[in-house]
Amino acid sequence: MSSILVVGSVAFDSVKTPFGEADDVLGGSATYFSVSASYFSPVNVVGVIGRDFTNEHQGVFKRHNIDTSGLVQTDGETFRWKGQYGYELNEAQTLDTRLNVLETFDPEIPDSYTDSAYVFLGNIDPVLQSRVLDQIKSPKLVACDTMNFWIDSKLDDLKRTLARIDMLVINDGEARMLSGEANLVQAANKIRAMGPERLIIKRGEYGVLMFNEDSIFGAPAFPLEEVFDPTGAGDTFAGGLMGHLARAGDMSDSTLRQAIVFGSVMASFNVEAFSLNKLSALTRTDIQGRFEQFKQLTHFESL
Amino acid sequence: MSSILVVGSVAFDSVKTPFGEADDVLGGSATYFSVSASYFSPVNVVGVIGRDFTNEHQGVFKRHNIDTSGLVQTDGETFRWKGQYGYELNEAQTLDTRLNVLETFDPEIPDSYTDSAYVFLGNIDPVLQSRVLDQIKSPKLVACDTMNFWIDSKLDDLKRTLARIDMLVINDGEARMLSGEANLVQAANKIRAMGPERLIIKRGEYGVLMFNEDSIFGAPAFPLEEVFDPTGAGDTFAGGLMGHLARAGDMSDSTLRQAIVFGSVMASFNVEAFSLNKLSALTRTDIQGRFEQFKQLTHFESL
Repeated sequence: MSSILVVGSVAFDSVKTPFGEADDVLGGSATYFSVSASYFSPVNVVGVIGRDFTNEHQGVFKRHNIDTSGLVQTDGETFRWKGQYGYELNEAQTLDTRLNVLETFDPEIPDSYTDSAYVFLGNIDPVLQSRVLDQIKSPKLVACDTMNFWIDSKLDDLKRTLARIDMLVINDGEARMLSGEANLVQAANKIRAMGPERLIIKRGEYGVLMFNEDSIFGAPAFPLEEVFDPTGAGDTFAGGLMGHLARAGDMSDSTLRQAIVFGSVMASFNVEAFSLNKLSALTRTDIQGRFEQFKQLTHFESL
Repeated sequence: MSSILVVGSVAFDSVKTPFGEADDVLGGSATYFSVSASYFSPVNVVGVIGRDFTNEHQGVFKRHNIDTSGLVQTDGETFRWKGQYGYELNEAQTLDTRLNVLETFDPEIPDSYTDSAYVFLGNIDPVLQSRVLDQIKSPKLVACDTMNFWIDSKLDDLKRTLARIDMLVINDGEARMLSGEANLVQAANKIRAMGPERLIIKRGEYGVLMFNEDSIFGAPAFPLEEVFDPTGAGDTFAGGLMGHLARAGDMSDSTLRQAIVFGSVMASFNVEAFSLNKLSALTRTDIQGRFEQFKQLTHFESL
């Protein structure tokens, strides 16, 4: 089975929602991604942690057989994010961001990772995303995330990264901002002309759209009766998506559609608890079961 | 084939979007609904029009074989609505509303309509919705729409109507307001306890959720490259939905799911032009073709 390399943040999050709060709990894009993907394929993680990152924290990676050779520990504190969500849980309000060791992060890819076939460039500086790509021999699929901050402040660098990737995974607001188009079909046309052949647009509680070749795939989000904490949902989605692609080993439209459903399934589990409390305790039967429920959710008969 | 009775507004709309504008064009919930439903089943419309409603305007109903015995013409002007949409086309801003003949509207159901098997109570005063129901002999299915204005000002009357219907078709904001729950699954549980066994929640460009027995069906909206005017999309959706149900003659979960897709298909055509310009000029092949495209949009393989 092919390995997935992910580069991104490892963080301690403090999150408050109308349903509770959690302080200094494990988070970060690389963390959510790699635990999610680990249910499908081997994962190599690249990131930086501080001296406050204990063996217990490392344990989550170990238990999921995630290779942490690329998780560098340096002097200083781990990246910290503090945010809260309103009653509708749709968008986080950031209360505090402390980059700490992330400030001087310059990802170095261990030799043992350079053969990784699948690469996911988490939401970091596009200059660093390009530098990671320089160090990978011949990836089969490169996917990438980004955010409004980079679209706004480093558009040229971002465009250089986009020209080198196969798949972009962003939310609808970012797609509109990057393209300057309100209509998502038109936004997709413009963004795909920048490089990525495939575009996946996340719409939170409303689901996902994928633009691939001449085909569009639309999937609703899995309706949940209890949503506790949306933090990490997007990265968890990307982890399930890339995980299934690496496991399947092909990039057919049919496999991509299934991968999006697996991503949605993983994200739906993740938001049911704070931090990785639920995501890190799943079984394959859980995942399989919700995949089937997702089929029930969306299926209708042809005439 | 069973007939559908619809009661609602017939209007002249003045609409401005970033892509153009139209003044005093045919609109209204009963109009959009009945033209949409007419592609599937016979339709009986109940509403009120003013002296300014010409034979040419009536022609749209005639061409679609819609029975207008219940469309009463009285002294005064037809209901007028003026609104505009921003760049993202998600919510109308009402600039002016003139009830005119609608102000004293008290729907009387022609004898020839009282056998209608399918009834759609468009978004009017819940007291009038109940009064319509009093006049129908033994409907097979009663569906209903409402809005924040009635939830706010006539909740008790609305609850009396809800206790008598089988299916409620509202948008997500209305569902949250009516239930007092932000989570849509919880909102659905509360609303269904008020009466309607089936709840359909419209989410505009994001699609639809249906709650029916123990099953949830989720469908994205059909992605369009050009959206000109969302006016009437919800009523057009309801028309396709009820039209297919009346045509099929059963209320199985499978038929309901198809009906939702037909509703989505009709709504997707409607927003591609101002007023009923596109909706009133479709062929069965157009509708069938987009139903198949909808299948392509949402399909994924089981494992």
